Amino acid sequence: IRELWKKAQDMAVAGWELGRSDPRKVVFAAKMGLALTLVSLLIFLEPTKDVGRYAVWAILTVVVVFEFSIGATLSKGMNRGIGTLSAGGLALGFAELSTLTGEWEEVFIIIGIFIMGFVATFLRLYPTMKPYDYGFRVFLLTFCFIMVSGYRTREFVTTAVNRFLLIALGAGVGLGVNLCIYPIWAGEDLHNLVAKNFMGVAKSLEGCVNGYLQCVEYERVPSKILTYQASDDPLYSGYRSAVESTSQEDALLSFAIWEPPHGPYRMLKYPWKSYVKLSGALRHCAFMVMALHGCILSEIQASPERRHVFSNEMQRVGSEGAKVLRELGNKVKTLTKLSSSTILFEVHQAAEELQRKIDRRSYLLVNSQHWEIGKRPEGIEHLNGVNIMDGGDNKRLSTKSLSETVIDLRSIQLSKSWDVRTPVYTGFDSSALAIGSPEALLKKQISWPARQISILDEVPDEEELSTYESASALSLATFTSLLIEFVARLQNLVDAFEELSEKAKFKEPAQELTVE
Amino acid sequence: IRELWKKAQDMAVAGWELGRSDPRKVVFAAKMGLALTLVSLLIFLEPTKDVGRYAVWAILTVVVVFEFSIGATLSKGMNRGIGTLSAGGLALGFAELSTLTGEWEEVFIIIGIFIMGFVATFLRLYPTMKPYDYGFRVFLLTFCFIMVSGYRTREFVTTAVNRFLLIALGAGVGLGVNLCIYPIWAGEDLHNLVAKNFMGVAKSLEGCVNGYLQCVEYERVPSKILTYQASDDPLYSGYRSAVESTSQEDALLSFAIWEPPHGPYRMLKYPWKSYVKLSGALRHCAFMVMALHGCILSEIQASPERRHVFSNEMQRVGSEGAKVLRELGNKVKTLTKLSSSTILFEVHQAAEELQRKIDRRSYLLVNSQHWEIGKRPEGIEHLNGVNIMDGGDNKRLSTKSLSETVIDLRSIQLSKSWDVRTPVYTGFDSSALAIGSPEALLKKQISWPARQISILDEVPDEEELSTYESASALSLATFTSLLIEFVARLQNLVDAFEELSEKAKFKEPAQELTVE
Repeated sequence: IRELWKKAQDMAVAGWELGRSDPRKVVFAAKMGLALTLVSLLIFLEPTKDVGRYAVWAILTVVVVFEFSIGATLSKGMNRGIGTLSAGGLALGFAELSTLTGEWEEVFIIIGIFIMGFVATFLRLYPTMKPYDYGFRVFLLTFCFIMVSGYRTREFVTTAVNRFLLIALGAGVGLGVNLCIYPIWAGEDLHNLVAKNFMGVAKSLEGCVNGYLQCVEYERVPSKILTYQASDDPLYSGYRSAVESTSQEDALLSFAIWEPPHGPYRMLKYPWKSYVKLSGALRHCAFMVMALHGCILSEIQASPERRHVFSNEMQRVGSEGAKVLRELGNKVKTLTKLSSSTILFEVHQAAEELQRKIDRRSYLLVNSQHWEIGKRPEGIEHLNGVNIMDGGDNKRLSTKSLSETVIDLRSIQLSKSWDVRTPVYTGFDSSALAIGSPEALLKKQISWPARQISILDEVPDEEELSTYESASALSLATFTSLLIEFVARLQNLVDAFEELSEKAKFKEPAQELTVE
Repeated sequence: IRELWKKAQDMAVAGWELGRSDPRKVVFAAKMGLALTLVSLLIFLEPTKDVGRYAVWAILTVVVVFEFSIGATLSKGMNRGIGTLSAGGLALGFAELSTLTGEWEEVFIIIGIFIMGFVATFLRLYPTMKPYDYGFRVFLLTFCFIMVSGYRTREFVTTAVNRFLLIALGAGVGLGVNLCIYPIWAGEDLHNLVAKNFMGVAKSLEGCVNGYLQCVEYERVPSKILTYQASDDPLYSGYRSAVESTSQEDALLSFAIWEPPHGPYRMLKYPWKSYVKLSGALRHCAFMVMALHGCILSEIQASPERRHVFSNEMQRVGSEGAKVLRELGNKVKTLTKLSSSTILFEVHQAAEELQRKIDRRSYLLVNSQHWEIGKRPEGIEHLNGVNIMDGGDNKRLSTKSLSETVIDLRSIQLSKSWDVRTPVYTGFDSSALAIGSPEALLKKQISWPARQISILDEVPDEEELSTYESASALSLATFTSLLIEFVARLQNLVDAFEELSEKAKFKEPAQELTVE
């Protein structure tokens, strides 16, 4: 008993938490209680005998129709109304016919029920009929009920009319309570969901870029990510919720279109569809973030040194990209138009800068060891050109000394304090660092000349090693180019937003904001 | 009227098509009709008067409980049963109490209804209570109904018992018909869905790789893809359906766990969860295919010539990867264990080969024009080493003449028949081809020496151009490295499959298959 008490306590606490985190749920539950009470009261007052007899329909209707959001309530009520009416009409016609058949009446009714059951169920399974599923159920139920109970009491019309009246009563009470007291709108939920997704993707993007630059690595990739289940990894949950919200959005959309204009959405035919479209465009961007995250999850990783070279640019692209997403999310939330078309300017600039940097330093993204062509000059320089090359590089440094990354590369080499005098080309070879093990490094240094002379007598193990290096360097290239592709996809997102803001007549941005 | 007739004809045709494509739907509709007929018959036979009076409950139960799959039927029936029973018990207790209150009886009942409505609805909104949503509704309905109608007739117990008996009758007929005649299993659907997803991803993968190598480009990316809506692009729909099936799988899973052992799934507690997990792992792979598709969708495209260099290797990885997926899909379909652990051998080999090729030719993946380091030697060679370099390359050719790709590169240069004698380094510059416009090419050739001399007086437009080139070359790198990452993720997929095949006790592969 004590355990039971404990459990009850736990549940109460959890319930309290739930109520605090989403007070709408408490309100909704109270509304439900109120509606039921009202219907019961009406029945207790009992104006005629019939009301009491068919009371169950009113209660049933309230219980069934009372959905969380207004849109869902309306759409279910509509389904129920149409289903009941059409079934009532059909059943009455059928009943008339059945009385004409005389002796065969029962057979006629049974066959009629079978045929109706078959047809209605078959139609219900039509893919396009999905939203009316409930209507078909009600149709079947009403039809059978009127046929059966009408046959018994011979009061087809009374049965149908009474039933309909009480359903109308239940629906009226349900709708009235739900609509008039603290209504909960599916459209608002949809709106908030879309805005929330923007924030989630922005967070994920920033997290991915920062994580990548800080060389976050998963000791073991959580199996939840591997099987695409929910997990509380913040990077992952941000974009996952955006990607996963499709079905939720579709459900909310199907309810929202039923809702009358309300609150900030004062407009006939409010373009809820455009919200879903915008969210789809966001998802298209989120897939790139997902691919970026894939680079972090991957086994093959670029060396921290190489990442560091592009660190400033990547950071900037990441934070600018997140800024754009956040700004769009806020605009969606506040229903404001874009203040100007330059929202993408900064992020495009950042991306261009990154691209230029890549352009200048793409040698860091590949591993030249096995080049069939590019190898040659290095060989030549090794033989006769090292000093010249070195000098050349120094000259370069003096003209380009503002570039902090060159210095970075230098300092890395110094910090490693190799006793081998590394030629300028170490840029190519520093992928060895990606391996991390000093033995591998040493081995590499030793076997170096061997490879110079002939490719044929390589140790296969060695080749594998450098293949890995090459892959690891390429992974950086992949990350950057995915990042740039992400920026490219932002344009599409902004277009979708502008379409929405036009259609939904978002308000113009406040003047102060433009000045800022 | 004629139009109506036409429409009816169209619908009949569509219905016929639907019936032919999925005969289960026809069978199900017929079953539904049968069940309704049976219940009506039972009521017509009318053994006692009470049966007729509460007939509606039996019909209602059949209509509501009769779901498409056995699992859904069972889970709904269970919900309904438990909801009715507990509500009945509570209502009876409540009724006893209410008679004790004497004059305040009505108030007591009303308050009771309000409290119950509140509590049950609040519990229903608990996230963990989602599967029991229907049970709570039934609970509420039954409770209110018994209270109200019991108050009127003073027959609380009779009402409750009758209601329960008729619900049991309805449930019995519904379950009997649904289970005994051509049962439709949710588990089977889940099983087929997972197997189908494998095929879809395999098709997409092959399509992506082939499309990429054939340089398929979208004139205008369909806006449906940009907003992630369903589209009939075969590449896209393959992985999209795999990615989108999450909610469908979850629904099927929640039904499948209710189903008794049946057919090939003869086992208590059949591990349906592992199917969903396997599907999650497949989704993890599908995201890579999605990213590959993203490379095709991207504006920035690598030149066909460069792609061609890696064509054989990529093709092989693609087709081997698809083969693995298909094989796994078939194994899932036939419930067979893997014949050996070498299923990944070929695709790994293919990926390694691709990786080695990249390693040897990664100069094709970058654009050396702006290199701060690598540029230098080229400049030197231009001044004094062209002939030597050229000779060197020829020598290289003679030792490596087996490599078809070198020949490829040559033939491209020949076919373009430039009148400028291109040095060996054209490998680097062929990215210019990616632009496609001859003007751009020409401009480049002209401005070439200018850049050699000084970086400072570059035309910015020019720089942008080459930045674009560099990006276009990197896009190939991205594609290949995503492809390799895809192969890496296959391991995880195979692991998930093996876990499933262990847990679900798949049959050992037939001996002949192993010999093959």
